[in-house]
Amino acid sequence: MAVAEGANENLNPNETKGKIITCKAAVAYGPGKPLVVEHVLVDPPQKMEVRIKILYTSICHTDLSAWQGKNEAQHAYPRILGHEASGIVESVGEGVCDMKEGDFVVPIFNGECGDCGYCKCEQTNKCERFGVDGMKKVMVNDGATRFSTVDGKPIYHFLNTSTFTEYTVVDSACVVKIHFDGDGDLNPYIKKLTLLSCGVSTGVGAAWNIANVHSASTVAVFGLGAVGLAVAEGARARGASKIIGVDINPDKFIKGRAMGITDFINPVDEEKPVYERIREITDGGVHYSFECAGNLNVLRDAFLSAHEGWGLTVLLGIHPSPEMLPIHPMELFTGRRIVGSVFGGFKGKTQLPHFAQKCMHGVVKLDDFITHELPFEEINKAFDLLVAGKSLRSLLHF
Amino acid sequence: MAVAEGANENLNPNETKGKIITCKAAVAYGPGKPLVVEHVLVDPPQKMEVRIKILYTSICHTDLSAWQGKNEAQHAYPRILGHEASGIVESVGEGVCDMKEGDFVVPIFNGECGDCGYCKCEQTNKCERFGVDGMKKVMVNDGATRFSTVDGKPIYHFLNTSTFTEYTVVDSACVVKIHFDGDGDLNPYIKKLTLLSCGVSTGVGAAWNIANVHSASTVAVFGLGAVGLAVAEGARARGASKIIGVDINPDKFIKGRAMGITDFINPVDEEKPVYERIREITDGGVHYSFECAGNLNVLRDAFLSAHEGWGLTVLLGIHPSPEMLPIHPMELFTGRRIVGSVFGGFKGKTQLPHFAQKCMHGVVKLDDFITHELPFEEINKAFDLLVAGKSLRSLLHF
Repeated sequence: MAVAEGANENLNPNETKGKIITCKAAVAYGPGKPLVVEHVLVDPPQKMEVRIKILYTSICHTDLSAWQGKNEAQHAYPRILGHEASGIVESVGEGVCDMKEGDFVVPIFNGECGDCGYCKCEQTNKCERFGVDGMKKVMVNDGATRFSTVDGKPIYHFLNTSTFTEYTVVDSACVVKIHFDGDGDLNPYIKKLTLLSCGVSTGVGAAWNIANVHSASTVAVFGLGAVGLAVAEGARARGASKIIGVDINPDKFIKGRAMGITDFINPVDEEKPVYERIREITDGGVHYSFECAGNLNVLRDAFLSAHEGWGLTVLLGIHPSPEMLPIHPMELFTGRRIVGSVFGGFKGKTQLPHFAQKCMHGVVKLDDFITHELPFEEINKAFDLLVAGKSLRSLLHF
Repeated sequence: MAVAEGANENLNPNETKGKIITCKAAVAYGPGKPLVVEHVLVDPPQKMEVRIKILYTSICHTDLSAWQGKNEAQHAYPRILGHEASGIVESVGEGVCDMKEGDFVVPIFNGECGDCGYCKCEQTNKCERFGVDGMKKVMVNDGATRFSTVDGKPIYHFLNTSTFTEYTVVDSACVVKIHFDGDGDLNPYIKKLTLLSCGVSTGVGAAWNIANVHSASTVAVFGLGAVGLAVAEGARARGASKIIGVDINPDKFIKGRAMGITDFINPVDEEKPVYERIREITDGGVHYSFECAGNLNVLRDAFLSAHEGWGLTVLLGIHPSPEMLPIHPMELFTGRRIVGSVFGGFKGKTQLPHFAQKCMHGVVKLDDFITHELPFEEINKAFDLLVAGKSLRSLLHF
């Protein structure tokens, strides 16, 4: 097969289409090992696949966990991690009708095939074929990879996306085309729309689609990373009257205020349990609490901080511990409820384009989420910033 | 205070109003001890209280647990148990405007004051002042009892109701007036309307108000006591296409078929886990599962038998074990949900009269729930029948 040699920002699709592309990628060779930025080969897209030229990619905690290799069952090396990105369609495989070369797109780790029982059901954003699957490492079409090392060894895929690369191949069910439906220009928004690929959609969607936060309601957000702050921003946009942020890192409070957080609680400074403090300042508990910390003690605090009778706790955090929910069955009779939220409940392909309009029209403010911008080559530095709790999102550009 | 002596079915309210009534009651003197049917004194109702002449009372598992004294914190003797009944208002206390002497009523253990934040909220049937409270043993008005032994010792109340007595005093928030809104006569329905006081409302309401079972949906009911069968009947009335009953007592299956159960699973006969069997026969899981057994392993089976993406598990069983929910936090990301249900989600005073109409018009069939009728004096025999799993509801009459 013909090969389009060399990584080049201005590579012409007319020259690359149907050919293998050689480009830069950050390859993971083992748990916790620094990513190696090197040249890889990217095959053309097969049937119902799309090859994307990535413009921006950023790092989320799921990448961090995968990089650290916390879940051994998910080990697969070499691998290209990354799932939050934006880019331009370079070429499409057979049968792809909803996108074409040059379209601006964001990849989504939780796809939407449109045909399965889940996709046809309004109550869920699960997808039978392209849902979140930490175990998946090859393409559905042929069980093979579209990436390989320059000496021909396969490089595994990650979370339906693999965005730590200049070019990636993704199933079309996991690619969302975004356009600006006014007369304006999409370009000023491209950088921040990258965040819709994961963190902002996950947080804002949990507030909008899963909790359905109502005007003048009270909200508590546990864990003020990018996802937690996106929940707060979503609640602010819905007109919540009180948005309580809980985090042990006081630096998060500065950022939080700009995103609508009205009250801060640092558990380290409190003598009583956080849920008691929250009940005091909200007349018995919040309407909605969101667990974005991935910690079981925090989960219990979040559950107990919700008001009896109508309080809803939304679970967003990843809980690697094998321990069960720290909630007694009888506690469900209080009327408190708890539900999980994946990708903010958004059906990616059908609902994200509309959500993008809301963002471009300023209903949701995205600017404050991008704390750092770095060249792609400095990806390991971006990981360090996230580990140190110094960044929300570091945007890597090619 | 004047005393109306002697238990008498035809006691004239004109002669008893404002006086202490001496009547028959079944008094609990200690955990597991046979109830003693003896004469007790019943004070007149105070402000916002109602004195009811009980026509029928029956026994539910909550009475059984209380009688067995499983929860030591709830011990209070002597005590009059019982919470499922129907009767006629004998007299009302000051300020009671929605009922008068002679009205047909059912007492409800989960009251509705109409004034608290919960009562004013559509999302819950909790009540701040008259909600379910296993610890409560005296009246709210004065912290005293309205019952006493013939030698003057106080007899404690139970679950806002205490119905194992010919006359009881209940807060008006815990009494629902029922009438027949057609031209017909209420009398033929009185016996079966007794069941609306607890079991049938709890089961049918869980299907209607909490799960909101939809037409052609699939349902699994774990535990086929009166509550579980009422869930099935509620699901049948909603047009569920498949109602799977799960119980280790094969006798329950005969009754279940008459109440709309279409498929039976006896876990004892199954080689594979019950949830796997249910997934097989429902294309991946039911829309709604109901846990009516009060067993944590059953709870997990119920949860896993619900379909990913949209399956809802409703918890009705009482779980005395201190163990937490046997569900991993990450399992909530499957889209399966679990919620608790108290008194079927009915706001008793405002919604039960309408539900009673549905029952009288045959939308819900109540006849099959009454398996035995006994004179009140044989109350201990009725307990034995329930313990042996031989009865659904034994109706005791005076």
